[in-house]
This record gives sequence, structure tokens and C-alpha cells, in this order.
Amino acid sequence: MGSVLTTSWMYTGHANKRHLTWCGLATKPQCCDDAAFEGQRKKVLIVYAHQEPRSLNGSLKDVAVAELSQQGCSVIVSDLYAMNFEPRATGKDITGTLSNPGFFNYGVEAHKAYKKQSLSSDIIEEQKKLQEADLVIFQFPLYWFSVPAVLKGWMDRVLCQGFAFDFPGSYDDGFLKGKLAILSLTTGGTASMFSKTGVNGDFRYFLWPLQHGTLHFCGFKVLAPQISFGPEMASEEERKGMVASWAQRLKTLWEEEPIQCSPPWYFGQ
Amino acid sequence: MGSVLTTSWMYTGHANKRHLTWCGLATKPQCCDDAAFEGQRKKVLIVYAHQEPRSLNGSLKDVAVAELSQQGCSVIVSDLYAMNFEPRATGKDITGTLSNPGFFNYGVEAHKAYKKQSLSSDIIEEQKKLQEADLVIFQFPLYWFSVPAVLKGWMDRVLCQGFAFDFPGSYDDGFLKGKLAILSLTTGGTASMFSKTGVNGDFRYFLWPLQHGTLHFCGFKVLAPQISFGPEMASEEERKGMVASWAQRLKTLWEEEPIQCSPPWYFGQ
Repeated sequence: MGSVLTTSWMYTGHANKRHLTWCGLATKPQCCDDAAFEGQRKKVLIVYAHQEPRSLNGSLKDVAVAELSQQGCSVIVSDLYAMNFEPRATGKDITGTLSNPGFFNYGVEAHKAYKKQSLSSDIIEEQKKLQEADLVIFQFPLYWFSVPAVLKGWMDRVLCQGFAFDFPGSYDDGFLKGKLAILSLTTGGTASMFSKTGVNGDFRYFLWPLQHGTLHFCGFKVLAPQISFGPEMASEEERKGMVASWAQRLKTLWEEEPIQCSPPWYFGQ
Repeated sequence: MGSVLTTSWMYTGHANKRHLTWCGLATKPQCCDDAAFEGQRKKVLIVYAHQEPRSLNGSLKDVAVAELSQQGCSVIVSDLYAMNFEPRATGKDITGTLSNPGFFNYGVEAHKAYKKQSLSSDIIEEQKKLQEADLVIFQFPLYWFSVPAVLKGWMDRVLCQGFAFDFPGSYDDGFLKGKLAILSLTTGGTASMFSKTGVNGDFRYFLWPLQHGTLHFCGFKVLAPQISFGPEMASEEERKGMVASWAQRLKTLWEEEPIQCSPPWYFGQ
């Protein structure tokens, strides 16, 4: 059960000061002890939802692990299918007694259980990874204009009230503020099908619930999505290009400005 | 395992001719045999995703069963949590040999398994219910601007290629054309929070992936959603009003015109 992978890290040197600031990378100065240097390393969590390691999603995940490790980041992958991650939000998520056993309200019970540290261990484990992360990459194939159910379940269960948000404490004040998030996804349709005049409408339309309603709600700054359009209709060479393009973008990802996550970005002309 | 409920049906009379046409209801004429009359009855599938029978979602489901049965419809409920419905799309969904065991592609395998009638029995059972239905009601609480994972998994697994759509065979030519669908959902936020100027944006924004990207894609005609806003912040009387309002709407639901399911409905001024 589980296939959590923590890559080893390595020292690398970078000339670009801004990059250094974001990524916390440098050749370790002799005066700097290991603990201090460790504290500078950027931590990345990749939440990955594909059944086939050799798929394009698998390759995109692998190249992200390789590139970010090469940069000196610490990378952890939550491989949801390999972990057989539970997507259903039920009473099993609360260990011990329920606050109101006669009337089960998942949101209320999960909130109270978070505060009492009595959520189930799989949720706590994901929350710990998320709490540590500077950047979260969601790697998945688009299922019905959204994430696969196993990843939706990760969002439903891990991002509970008290941990990821509260009232007050949402959107720019969400509890995960200070962290970056990015969706890296593959689609069945082509880019033109996901344009304003295409049959599926603009790709930004379907990003609203995920980027605004979920990630921004929890306080994340959202980077522009990495969309690999229609890999199953593409040639092997084109698919390699999609992987190379992602690897290239990751080299300067820390320098990117987040999107302005509000209606004009999604629905503007 | 499972809590599939088939309500009994009854004869009722209606004066409104248009209603008669849609609903297929009439006092059974003496010349009409039972089988012919049975063929006229409208069939409704309610896909229901809430853990607590006594919740507002439970009440909205119950009142729909009661009202539609009262009309003479045949009603089936798929109670996803009670069924412990599997949300994860995996190789377990395909019985027998995989088409390509060395490289698992869920969409391709599910499509082939559908044609060979070798999908897992839980998927086949839901597809049969869906195939029979004239109207599908999705009853759920909004989780992260979308359906709970257990319902997302129902969509991911049941609406497979070959059954619900193909290429060609999507949107107005989707294989479920001729059927009606409606989302009946509850929200955490109030109606003003889900307005164009509200913090969550217009409620129509989050409906796009569900109504257009899923239901319309499969050929459904989509009725305007039934949204019960913020029941947890409402009084008991207001919650009763939400249930009564849904029951009232159901009385004439068959007379409603579907929405124009295209970008202007969702994102227009």
C-alpha cells in the first residue's frame, strides 16, 4: 500500500539571484551547517493520478521529479492509484467518537476531528506533506472537464476546514497561503476544441472550480496550468515534445508570477 | 451492499394535455393492457450522494421520490454511499483479459469492455438504470464547486465511451439524447456569495463542467439546476421551504424547457 517516493537531493549552483531566492539553492557555503542549508531547500509535493506508470502523465510526473531534484528541491509524490487512496468522504475518516452520531455532517465532523487530531491516518499523512510543501503540482488526465474521482477525493478529504481554510480564512486568507499550486493535465481533445469557439469551450472555463473554487479558496497562489492537449491523437515525437516542454518550463517555474485568479482570467474576452 | 429502492407506482389522472404528453400519465383506459400502460410510465433515476438520510439532501431525495411516484412515475434511487459505490477508475472495472495488459489505458479498456459486455457488474447495473431512465436527477451537496468524489466516480466509470458517447456521437448526438437531466444541489455559501459580484462568482460558472462537459456531452437535455443555497445557515423553517419548493417544482418539471447549454447561458452578461 502506497508508493510515496522521496527523491534524494543534491547541491547545484545557480547564477541567477532571483532564482536563488525562490528556489533556495546554492552550493553550500562552508560556513553553513547542514540544518540551515536544509531549511533553504524548496519542497515540492506532486499529487499524481494515473493508473499507468508508462503513460504520458507518468512521464510528466517523472520528468518533474528529475528536474526539480536536479534543482536541489526535495520532491515527494503521492501516487494516488498506487496508494489505493480512498476517495469517499465517510464516517471512517473520523477516528474515535463522532460529535453527533445521530446526524452525520461530514464537514462538521472532519473540522472537529482535525482540531482533536482524530482524522484518519491517510488524511493526516497527506496534510503533513501539504503543510511542508512550497509548491504542489497536480498531475492528472482530464476526466469529464475535471480531475479523476480519486483526486477529487483527495481534495474532498485532505482540504478540510481548520486545516486548509476556515471562516474567516478563505481565498487570499486561506490557510495554505504562501504556497504555489499548478495543474499539469492532459486532455482527450485538441487545443482548438478547447478554445472559445471550440466545441468544448475555452479551457479556462473548466479550470474555475479547480483553480478558484478549490486552490485559491485555500489560499494557494496559482501558476498558469500546464496543459498537454490530445496526446492520444499526437505522434510519439509530439508526445516527447510535451514532456520536454514541461521540463523546460520547470527550469524557471519559480520565477513565474501567479495568475490573477478572478473571473476576468477565466471568462474575460 | 446497496440500497437501491424502486418505488411502487400508481395510476393518477391529469387534465393538462401537455403534462400528459410528457409524463405519459393517464387513468388507464379499460382497453389498454398493463404492458402498454407500463410502457407509457416515465422512469426516473435519482443518483444520490449524501451520507446522512436525515440531511437536507436526504429530504430533497425523499420528496422527489414521493412526488414523482405520486405522479405515476417509476423511480429508482442509486444511493452511492449506502452502496459503497467504487469511485476509482481502475483495471478492476474490466473483467477478463485486458486488451493491452502491458500499458493500461482506462478509457480504451473501458470502451472495449463495454462492447464485449465485460465491464464490472456495478457499472453494468448503473448503465441499465440509466438506459431505462427518461429523467436523471443528481442530488448532492456541492464539494469544492463540484460533485463529491463518490459521484464523480459514478460519472467517470458509468459514462464510458460506447455507452454514453463516441466519436462521432457527442453533445447533441451523445448516446443519452432524448433523456433529461437535472442537478439538485445544496451549497455551503449563500446565493449572494454565488453571484457575479460575490466572492465565489456566479453559480453558473461552476456548473459548466457538470452540465456542459458531462451531461450535454453525453446528449442529455439539461433542466435548470435546483440549488438550495446555504441550508446550514438557514432556519428550520427556511429548510422546510427549500424542500417544499423542490416538491412544488417537480409537479410541473416535465413541462419545463431545457436550458440552452452553451457559453452564453453560463458566462453571458
